[in-house]
Amino acid sequence: MANTWLPTLKNPDLQSGYDRAIMFSRMEVKLTRPDAEIRRKLRSDYEKDASVLIDVSAVVAANFHTVVAANKYWSNT
Amino acid sequence: MANTWLPTLKNPDLQSGYDRAIMFSRMEVKLTRPDAEIRRKLRSDYEKDASVLIDVSAVVAANFHTVVAANKYWSNT
Amino acid sequence: MANTWLPTLKNPDLQSGYDRAIMFSRMEVKLTRPDAEIRRKLRSDYEKDASVLIDVSAVVAANFHTVVAANKYWSNT
Amino acid sequence: MANTWLPTLKNPDLQSGYDRAIMFSRMEVKLTRPDAEIRRKLRSDYEKDASVLIDVSAVVAANFHTVVAANKYWSNT
Amino acid sequence: MANTWLPTLKNPDLQSGYDRAIMFSRMEVKLTRPDAEIRRKLRSDYEKDASVLIDVSAVVAANFHTVVAANKYWSNT
Amino acid sequence: MANTWLPTLKNPDLQSGYDRAIMFSRMEVKLTRPDAEIRRKLRSDYEKDASVLIDVSAVVAANFHTVVAANKYWSNT
Repeated sequence: MANTWLPTLKNPDLQSGYDRAIMFSRMEVKLTRPDAEIRRKLRSDYEKDASVLIDVSAVVAANFHTVVAANKYWSNT
Repeated sequence: MANTWLPTLKNPDLQSGYDRAIMFSRMEVKLTRPDAEIRRKLRSDYEKDASVLIDVSAVVAANFHTVVAANKYWSNT
Repeated sequence: MANTWLPTLKNPDLQSGYDRAIMFSRMEVKLTRPDAEIRRKLRSDYEKDASVLIDVSAVVAANFHTVVAANKYWSNT
Repeated sequence: MANTWLPTLKNPDLQSGYDRAIMFSRMEVKLTRPDAEIRRKLRSDYEKDASVLIDVSAVVAANFHTVVAANKYWSNT
Repeated sequence: MANTWLPTLKNPDLQSGYDRAIMFSRMEVKLTRPDAEIRRKLRSDYEKDASVLIDVSAVVAANFHTVVAANKYWSNT
Repeated sequence: MANTWLPTLKNPDLQSGYDRAIMFSRMEVKLTRPDAEIRRKLRSDYEKDASVLIDVSAVVAANFHTVVAANKYWSNT
């Protein structure tokens, strides 16, 4: 696993924080299932499954919560 | 993905904060599954599935929690 | 969607805060699936499904957490 | 719904706080599905279903978190 | 239900805090389903079910979060 | 269960904190299901199941949240 894929939790603004939450969610799947071929297969599976898609968005929501807290909600922006 | 879809977490009141939580939940699905046609298909699927619908509302609840914390619960309103 | 369905997160006591959490959970479903007829149908479905019922109570628990935090746990009552 | 089923979040100690979390979880189901006969039926269903049982314990865990935070973790006990 | 199964949330270190989170998770199942025979049966069921096993670990993660917060992350250790 | 598998929640940086969250998630499964043979079997099952994989990433997200909070978001890095 790469040494420097995520050097900091700080993000300049909400938009980039949100993108980071998405990135986290992808990494969580990637680190759990490192084989790219299997991931591609699984992705094509859940593309057709509303239930899994919603579960993915729940993970993004959880990561987003972590990121915004780490940035103190960008209170000064 | 659009650069400016979400410039701030601040909302003037609870109602608009709630609407923002809904919007987050939609974006989370949209960014995960960018193809509009597939989303439309999935939406018509889970329209008939109580279980997925409840899962959607769980994601909204999670995002709502993030938004209200960011706005410090509108303590001064 | 009505403009004033939820003007504040403040509740005088725990009981009313709890009722508000229930109300949130209903709104989350309502805003996600605005057609009353479909909701009625889905409700009669999950009335028979323990799994979905528990998921509903999980959403209520999440919203309840948000409400009690917003009211600082009614520490002074 | 009874007016006074839950007058306060304060509990003298961890044990009673935990029991309260259990009580919350039951109320969440009860308020969602008020018919006692249906609840009895659903309960006998999930008695045999490990998946639903784990989901119930997740709801208890969420409510427990709320209760212990409200009691500031009983830091002084 | 025993009167004194959990007298405090304080744990001397992370390891014992983690064990406590595991213990919570077991109690949540035990209090929900008091019959030992049924629990044994359910356990042998989900032993073969990856999905339920992951759900169990989610409950442990939630309880662990509660325990570490109660111990202020053992910041002084 | 080993006495010293996790001596501290402190991590020098985000990357190692993230790895720790992954490690927590594995331990949660391991302590719940200690038999290595059964775990290997279950793992090969969910390798093919997108739904379980997403659930695993949700557990990682929850543990990650705990770790970053314990490290106060590495605010000084």
